[in-house]
Amino acid sequence: MTNTILADPATLASRVTAALLAAGASPDSAAATTDALMHASRTGIDSHGVRLAAHYAAMLRQGRLNGTPTLTIRRTAPATAMLDADDGLGHYACDRAMALALDLTAETGIGAVGIVRSSHCGAAGAYALKAAEAGMVGIVTSNSDANVTLFGGSLPFHGTNPIAMAAPVAGQPPWLLDIATSSIPFNRVRLYRALDRPLPPGVAADARGHETTSAHAAHMLLPLGGAEYGFKGAALAGLVTILSAVLTGATPDPDMIPMTDTDDRTTARNVGQFCLAIDPARFVGRAAYDRAMTDYLRQLRAVPPADTDHPVMAPGDREWATARRRAAEGIPIDPDTRRFLGL
Amino acid sequence: MTNTILADPATLASRVTAALLAAGASPDSAAATTDALMHASRTGIDSHGVRLAAHYAAMLRQGRLNGTPTLTIRRTAPATAMLDADDGLGHYACDRAMALALDLTAETGIGAVGIVRSSHCGAAGAYALKAAEAGMVGIVTSNSDANVTLFGGSLPFHGTNPIAMAAPVAGQPPWLLDIATSSIPFNRVRLYRALDRPLPPGVAADARGHETTSAHAAHMLLPLGGAEYGFKGAALAGLVTILSAVLTGATPDPDMIPMTDTDDRTTARNVGQFCLAIDPARFVGRAAYDRAMTDYLRQLRAVPPADTDHPVMAPGDREWATARRRAAEGIPIDPDTRRFLGL
Repeated sequence: MTNTILADPATLASRVTAALLAAGASPDSAAATTDALMHASRTGIDSHGVRLAAHYAAMLRQGRLNGTPTLTIRRTAPATAMLDADDGLGHYACDRAMALALDLTAETGIGAVGIVRSSHCGAAGAYALKAAEAGMVGIVTSNSDANVTLFGGSLPFHGTNPIAMAAPVAGQPPWLLDIATSSIPFNRVRLYRALDRPLPPGVAADARGHETTSAHAAHMLLPLGGAEYGFKGAALAGLVTILSAVLTGATPDPDMIPMTDTDDRTTARNVGQFCLAIDPARFVGRAAYDRAMTDYLRQLRAVPPADTDHPVMAPGDREWATARRRAAEGIPIDPDTRRFLGL
Repeated sequence: MTNTILADPATLASRVTAALLAAGASPDSAAATTDALMHASRTGIDSHGVRLAAHYAAMLRQGRLNGTPTLTIRRTAPATAMLDADDGLGHYACDRAMALALDLTAETGIGAVGIVRSSHCGAAGAYALKAAEAGMVGIVTSNSDANVTLFGGSLPFHGTNPIAMAAPVAGQPPWLLDIATSSIPFNRVRLYRALDRPLPPGVAADARGHETTSAHAAHMLLPLGGAEYGFKGAALAGLVTILSAVLTGATPDPDMIPMTDTDDRTTARNVGQFCLAIDPARFVGRAAYDRAMTDYLRQLRAVPPADTDHPVMAPGDREWATARRRAAEGIPIDPDTRRFLGL
């Protein structure tokens, strides 16, 4: 990319924090948000990385986001709690909710925290990862504004609704799944429009809900599984909406104010998230879990690839390889973000 | 189908129970297995319905399955437990594990039970449904023997590894997701071979891992998402293996003795399952959950279909419609099963 630079991670993180603070974020909010954005940028999930700092700063300045939220925790049972995010940055809410879920799990073996009155949380995997770093299996879901149609539907209904899970691997980076329940993000459609390129089959639909490979005609996304098996992706998107929004009191996807395609930058969006942690020590036991997880991944990575140029990888392997490369070479930053961060 | 009859549900259930008892199943094992098979047969999931009774009876007689298992429960924390299924019928283990998870959840808000030394459990949705019938959200996963390749892999690695979730809906049948993490089951490949029909694209691979639409060349399944987005389905299959097997001490998918394609009918398979329950009353609260779930489904079902012949449905809607029809008309039974059950 023209004018893309490679930024030093430490410098980049401090510029992101400074930009969020300057836009009115509290030190805690800014720190948690920087952590989550840097996770995405380090691991190559650039759509959810530091490029979003400019968007969040604008939303803090224009009033949609509360820069100085008071998080309210309501402990509802020995293993469960609700966290009211007070319309602050979703990253801060998710960071604190997973920390609480881990505290609960240490006592009860499994624990869950529902989050209400939250906002976009970046890459959900960032919080699942916090669990794995603490030796627990973590699962995080977030609902989002509607741009994916139902199976056979003619309107956007669910968001791209990510499911993230991280599982600890002794002596190795965690197994890390972080996927949207659509095949592609809507940004991909915008990119292909700009490039005047056709979309792959089975990923998008026109304004009447019919599958299309025209990026220009594409009006919404199809759920994972496409025109034939999209009932599975739609059901998984529903799983996310039920856990993140129905269970928490957040706004359901079809009623949610869009993150970007709207002039309303003052009304809070009431996004919902669900954070779950599971302690392997309370199931098969720590040592047996560690052995089984290591063996499972060894077997998986030993499967011969169908195409020798593309080795088989476990979820997260690509991301950790990117993180190693970027730690050495720096993190690529697009011109707009570079300008915003003064790099 | 030729010679398919429509059986009265009560008669069918009593014949299934009698066949399992005659093969050596304990009354509790036979009752739980009959319940699960009848759930599948009532709701149209015929691949997991009463046709499997003959298979289970053969495995009980030949020694793979223990007809009189002693289930051992080890309570590991306030919200977690392990259940050793003693190589009995997986239906019995899952039924008891979900009952236990519901007891835990009543106390702690969320609860999970891992199952080890289990076997095929039929439709995982049957046990998620038990949670919804008790007013809880239920999630059930089971690992299975390898017949789905990895993304870009050349060998079968994961099983079709189902994810099931049920959520209660006030005054209506539950929302019910019960999906394999492959696009199709391997039985579909066998059926298409027999019919000499091509498979849809993106569902199967040949013996070297390359996508094929030839049912004859198909050697393994592709994960949900197909040749382009199968990394998502493979990651979801891995989520199931980690929760069901790595966390419980069950046999990982690639090492598991096949359910059917094997001469070994005496060695126990050590399948693993994971049962999770969540109490909505401990999150947004019962009344608010009920309202939100009802509103979500009303909105979903009101989305105009892209094709007027195919109305938009929520997960489970098709199954509940089938159940209503079959309650009136009877349950279709194929000739082999009819003969086995003496119908």
